[in-house]
Amino acid sequence: MRQSDLHSPIPIKIIGAGLVGSLLSIYFSRMKIPVEIYERRGDMRNGKSTGGRSINLAISTRGLSALEEVGLKKQVLEICLPMKGRAVHALDGSVNIQPYGKEDECIYSVSRGDLNKILMTVAQEKYKVPIHFDHQLTLLDLDEMSADVETATQKIKVSGGVFIGADGSASAMREAISEITQADVSQEKLSYAYKELLIPAAKQDATGKFGIFQMDPDALHIWPRGKFMLIALPNLDGSFTATLFLSEHPPSSPMDKSEISFDELKTPKAVTDFFSKNFPDALIMHPHLTDDFFGNPTGHMITIKASKWSYSGKAMIMGDAAHAIVPFFGQGMNCGFEDCRVLNQVMTKYLDSFDWSKIFHEFFAVRKQNADAIADLAQENFIEMRDKVADPKFLFLKSVERVLMKNFAADYASRYQLVSFSNIPYQVAKRIGVIEDEILTELCEGLLTAEKVDLVKAKLLIEKKLKPELAPFLKRNDLWI
Amino acid sequence: MRQSDLHSPIPIKIIGAGLVGSLLSIYFSRMKIPVEIYERRGDMRNGKSTGGRSINLAISTRGLSALEEVGLKKQVLEICLPMKGRAVHALDGSVNIQPYGKEDECIYSVSRGDLNKILMTVAQEKYKVPIHFDHQLTLLDLDEMSADVETATQKIKVSGGVFIGADGSASAMREAISEITQADVSQEKLSYAYKELLIPAAKQDATGKFGIFQMDPDALHIWPRGKFMLIALPNLDGSFTATLFLSEHPPSSPMDKSEISFDELKTPKAVTDFFSKNFPDALIMHPHLTDDFFGNPTGHMITIKASKWSYSGKAMIMGDAAHAIVPFFGQGMNCGFEDCRVLNQVMTKYLDSFDWSKIFHEFFAVRKQNADAIADLAQENFIEMRDKVADPKFLFLKSVERVLMKNFAADYASRYQLVSFSNIPYQVAKRIGVIEDEILTELCEGLLTAEKVDLVKAKLLIEKKLKPELAPFLKRNDLWI
Repeated sequence: MRQSDLHSPIPIKIIGAGLVGSLLSIYFSRMKIPVEIYERRGDMRNGKSTGGRSINLAISTRGLSALEEVGLKKQVLEICLPMKGRAVHALDGSVNIQPYGKEDECIYSVSRGDLNKILMTVAQEKYKVPIHFDHQLTLLDLDEMSADVETATQKIKVSGGVFIGADGSASAMREAISEITQADVSQEKLSYAYKELLIPAAKQDATGKFGIFQMDPDALHIWPRGKFMLIALPNLDGSFTATLFLSEHPPSSPMDKSEISFDELKTPKAVTDFFSKNFPDALIMHPHLTDDFFGNPTGHMITIKASKWSYSGKAMIMGDAAHAIVPFFGQGMNCGFEDCRVLNQVMTKYLDSFDWSKIFHEFFAVRKQNADAIADLAQENFIEMRDKVADPKFLFLKSVERVLMKNFAADYASRYQLVSFSNIPYQVAKRIGVIEDEILTELCEGLLTAEKVDLVKAKLLIEKKLKPELAPFLKRNDLWI
Repeated sequence: MRQSDLHSPIPIKIIGAGLVGSLLSIYFSRMKIPVEIYERRGDMRNGKSTGGRSINLAISTRGLSALEEVGLKKQVLEICLPMKGRAVHALDGSVNIQPYGKEDECIYSVSRGDLNKILMTVAQEKYKVPIHFDHQLTLLDLDEMSADVETATQKIKVSGGVFIGADGSASAMREAISEITQADVSQEKLSYAYKELLIPAAKQDATGKFGIFQMDPDALHIWPRGKFMLIALPNLDGSFTATLFLSEHPPSSPMDKSEISFDELKTPKAVTDFFSKNFPDALIMHPHLTDDFFGNPTGHMITIKASKWSYSGKAMIMGDAAHAIVPFFGQGMNCGFEDCRVLNQVMTKYLDSFDWSKIFHEFFAVRKQNADAIADLAQENFIEMRDKVADPKFLFLKSVERVLMKNFAADYASRYQLVSFSNIPYQVAKRIGVIEDEILTELCEGLLTAEKVDLVKAKLLIEKKLKPELAPFLKRNDLWI
């Protein structure tokens, strides 16, 4: 029996050459499945292109695990900067850095564009994946398995094969699938918008490739101000990409006129005054603040949940197209990459039949509840970042948690660690986070300093409440489905 | 009347081409006073030399004010890295950054060697100052105004002119002057020793000139551990120079066997265990820790006070030679540079007579009490750095002080600000620091959060206790003598 008898792979057509689409094409190629990509935008490697919606991403264990599977982890880490913790900037200029995990546990700042370029280049050059740029999907006939694709000059009919949509939160594929399957799609737009601003390097070398950072390059910087926040991630060239998250409009309640929003920041003076009052230490690092502010677009954030991701064995959506989430846990891309890894794992069961209907069904069954869990966690983390990390009570809880992490390293891993430094399913991480909150609240009652936490009681609580849930999943680097 | 009739400058012979000697030669040259330098060591610009006793220095306002007077501030700032505050590393890996002053007030990390090279090169090339390297002073006959100077091959007699010793804490000039003048010289050796260790860059460019820092490059890092501490200052190439300050020997009291000292750190395992226990976050940044530890010398620190600095109008000592201090306020070099500025100011009175006896006398009269004050402040700051910056009570006091600095910017400047960001005499800064401690202690009584400090009471205390002392000296950037 020849190889080709066992496998008779239908060719795959991926819509979208973004992060998930490009990585997915590599996964398919490694399974000897013919694949090609249709991308609405031009090739970002030729001169400037808008690229994705944000400049910096935080890549963590889930994303790296997928990259490792396809042999790209080392190459990607070359363009990454480790961030060991949160650097929380208080109004008085003091900064508090809270580590994310153990000494060697960190998340990585990476340029979305640079990462995408690596993935596209590897797909094209190593795996000979055709990427059709400037090809926009305009019509999808799922029963016929055919699509209309438009370029600047012509309309093409693409037919045959299985379609996978990795076309982002504004997915055309999702629309087609949900229409034909009568799926429920909920789109929850955040009332907050964001604006990216560049904090330049203090000094730079002649080539402009290396520079001296104006803040700690080994941390994710946060200026939590209750109802709004500024964050900043380091770039390789010594600059930081800062992002302001702020209400788009004033609150509708006329009672609360005090709350600032993007609507009120319409003049350079208003912006400078706002920064001077709320982020004075960031303001002095930022010589071109108002140019950036009025030159850069205002971005929006959305959580999308769909009750169906596929139509029979003919088409499926993945990544943001299936489950767009808000960016506050730094998991959007990590979750999308994990989608690729999990799909690959599901497919290994069906390598002799390539029953796409079963594959899509099983993928949804294992993946949907985890996508929902990280969507919720990401929303919760916004409150944590913009508000709680400046709250002494929350900080005290976290310092008690660090004592537990140190003393019960084998049995205790925080929710943040489980989400960012493990491949444990998101829904397990979410459930365990709730248990840990209960344990910490109980241990903190009447406690004055974190070091004095009752370790005997802690051990009992961990044994009783946490271990039954968590123990089956630790070892943390196992690749869970 | 020709210029040369008004001035009849005696040639000056400076002993020591270190930081103070080199800068002093520039000051003299600008006053058209002929000057040459004798330096015991070889020229550090030719290949490697041991240079000074420490690799990094913190330069602040006093040092920069002197450099500005001779037109070198801009050139020196090019090789400096700003440090905006203290980054205090707790044992659990969290870091707290406390700003030193206002947003734009920072001290600068600079390489002692690079700074010295600039000063020597400017002295030689722009001002044609002869620097005789490898010339060691062996005998000084102060009555004859002559000196024996030895090179590797010969002994030279140097005579005529005025001798100024800028030959550091082990000054031969001080010995000669104190012997002939019967001066009291107290030398208080610290029971602590230090060891320099290099934290390399995380990544470096091809030239090795730029790299990515493993911690915040904009701060002076401290790991306060009560009886000992580690600090680290950033270098331009992305590395940090870390320094461990630790007791040299175990305490003599047999009661206190627990206290660690350099004597116990004799094996790689002992060093690694010590770091793993006390500085786990620094350990993982430090791949060659034990090589550094056993390869680098152990340094010592000393406070020297001399009751006389000069002998009639024939010879004087300056800088560390006159008043060596411990390094904990980062003021050794700044104080030495201020010596040069103040001497220059004293001399402007005597430009028609060049009565060196009067000049030396007046210099001592204005400078001695300030040198004593910074010696005391530097010793106190050791306690603050190694111990107090980790003490919640002290941190609370400091956060209340930041509220005062913000609300009473015109009338309140902290001791640290006065020492590091002003040219106000050290003794005034010391006296005001005591008053501020009293005010802060009074305001903190029963206070729960810094923001709730009684500003009315604060204003009263500042008006009554602080203003009478401080007001005559603010404006801070005035050049006080």
